[in-house]
Amino acid sequence: MSDAPKIVTAGMLVIGNEILSGRTRDTNTNFIAARLTELGIRLREARAVPDDEAVIVAAVREMSGRFDYVFTSGGIGPTHDDITADCIAKAFNVGIDVHPEARGRLERHYPAGHLNEARLRMARIPDGASLVDNPVSIAPGFRIGNVFVMAGVPNIMQAMFDSIRHELVGGAKLHSRTLTSFALEGQIASGLSAIQNRHAELEIGSYPFMRQGRAGASVVLRGTDLTRLAEATEQVRALMEQLGGEPREVNV
Amino acid sequence: MSDAPKIVTAGMLVIGNEILSGRTRDTNTNFIAARLTELGIRLREARAVPDDEAVIVAAVREMSGRFDYVFTSGGIGPTHDDITADCIAKAFNVGIDVHPEARGRLERHYPAGHLNEARLRMARIPDGASLVDNPVSIAPGFRIGNVFVMAGVPNIMQAMFDSIRHELVGGAKLHSRTLTSFALEGQIASGLSAIQNRHAELEIGSYPFMRQGRAGASVVLRGTDLTRLAEATEQVRALMEQLGGEPREVNV
Repeated sequence: MSDAPKIVTAGMLVIGNEILSGRTRDTNTNFIAARLTELGIRLREARAVPDDEAVIVAAVREMSGRFDYVFTSGGIGPTHDDITADCIAKAFNVGIDVHPEARGRLERHYPAGHLNEARLRMARIPDGASLVDNPVSIAPGFRIGNVFVMAGVPNIMQAMFDSIRHELVGGAKLHSRTLTSFALEGQIASGLSAIQNRHAELEIGSYPFMRQGRAGASVVLRGTDLTRLAEATEQVRALMEQLGGEPREVNV
Repeated sequence: MSDAPKIVTAGMLVIGNEILSGRTRDTNTNFIAARLTELGIRLREARAVPDDEAVIVAAVREMSGRFDYVFTSGGIGPTHDDITADCIAKAFNVGIDVHPEARGRLERHYPAGHLNEARLRMARIPDGASLVDNPVSIAPGFRIGNVFVMAGVPNIMQAMFDSIRHELVGGAKLHSRTLTSFALEGQIASGLSAIQNRHAELEIGSYPFMRQGRAGASVVLRGTDLTRLAEATEQVRALMEQLGGEPREVNV
């Protein structure tokens, strides 16, 4: 008997009115999703919420209980609408105060006299949390329990994520194969369904496309067992060929 | 005494493994967010979930109860991984079957003999739902209760949304003004906080930027009362000017 592959899960919480008003396009979720996939961690939910304490606290508690890891982006700057750190402290029922090391980093960063009260808010860290480095603009994020709290500005969030990725323990890596062809979804659907039924341990997804006026579908197969994945991929390829779809394997 | 402005809320549910694996970037949320803002509807949450029945059913029930409107995208095609219609039926505790009008549309669309069993799945509509037109690829979405179910492919989703927007009843429109300047967040924070405190009915957000090597912040003020909004905007402008930030008003 073989051990079942260990599944490690994550949730992403995007915090900020600007995402929900349509002013700002969230690109952090896609970055995190792709990085987690590489690390063998399955992103199971991404949720965008407004700068609203009750909503953030409830979401953090729920996601922290449901997933192995939670990542948040947004709301850790110096202005009054940056309420994430306080919400996280509340979600974990801990206090929050200026963290000596975080304060030290800000003191070394700003010219004398420029570390005002607003900027010092960025050193307020929930009790018991550890700091997440910010190589771009210094003010740190933090980790408490299984929750990683990061900035919303994409290049800062990405740098923070890269500084914590060694702390993440992935599970069974989900390998992926993608075949694309001009066989339409409605043509491959029944054959594809039969292949899925024979390979219940794989996730097989179908995504229609239109390219230069020609319609087709990409089929993405994902799973932890490379042999079974290869087997199902060849069956999908044969199905597409049989329908004259000119299948091609692509790396996405 | 004046009546309080009516607040109309919405939630967005993005359905599909491809979003959470990082393969596909969700652009539907940003489209819906911007359109709803124009209509005076506040998007309060956007959630991406996998093709997992239990998760989708729970999310639809929860969001349908919490918001005035719910919009879903994804999972209504002909393949085995398209499970949204069945999940919605389950969430509303109703049956699901081939809808005569939806079937008729597909019959008129496909050449004789091409409406196979897989394609006919796209005519399966929960009992009591009304159809949402699909001018792009015919297979309809649907509305049941306060939930609008749309395709995941962006141009189809957008066409579907435009075909139902006349059914949406907005509330008090949230007007928005944006000032941008080279005063840094840490410089404006305390003055901005005071302005927010004097205008509790407005939402004032601050967003740092870096442009051609020069840092600054955009301040977005939003509210239903144009007079109060204008008053607070002038106070923010004065604050930025006082700090030498060269404020400019921008239309975003």
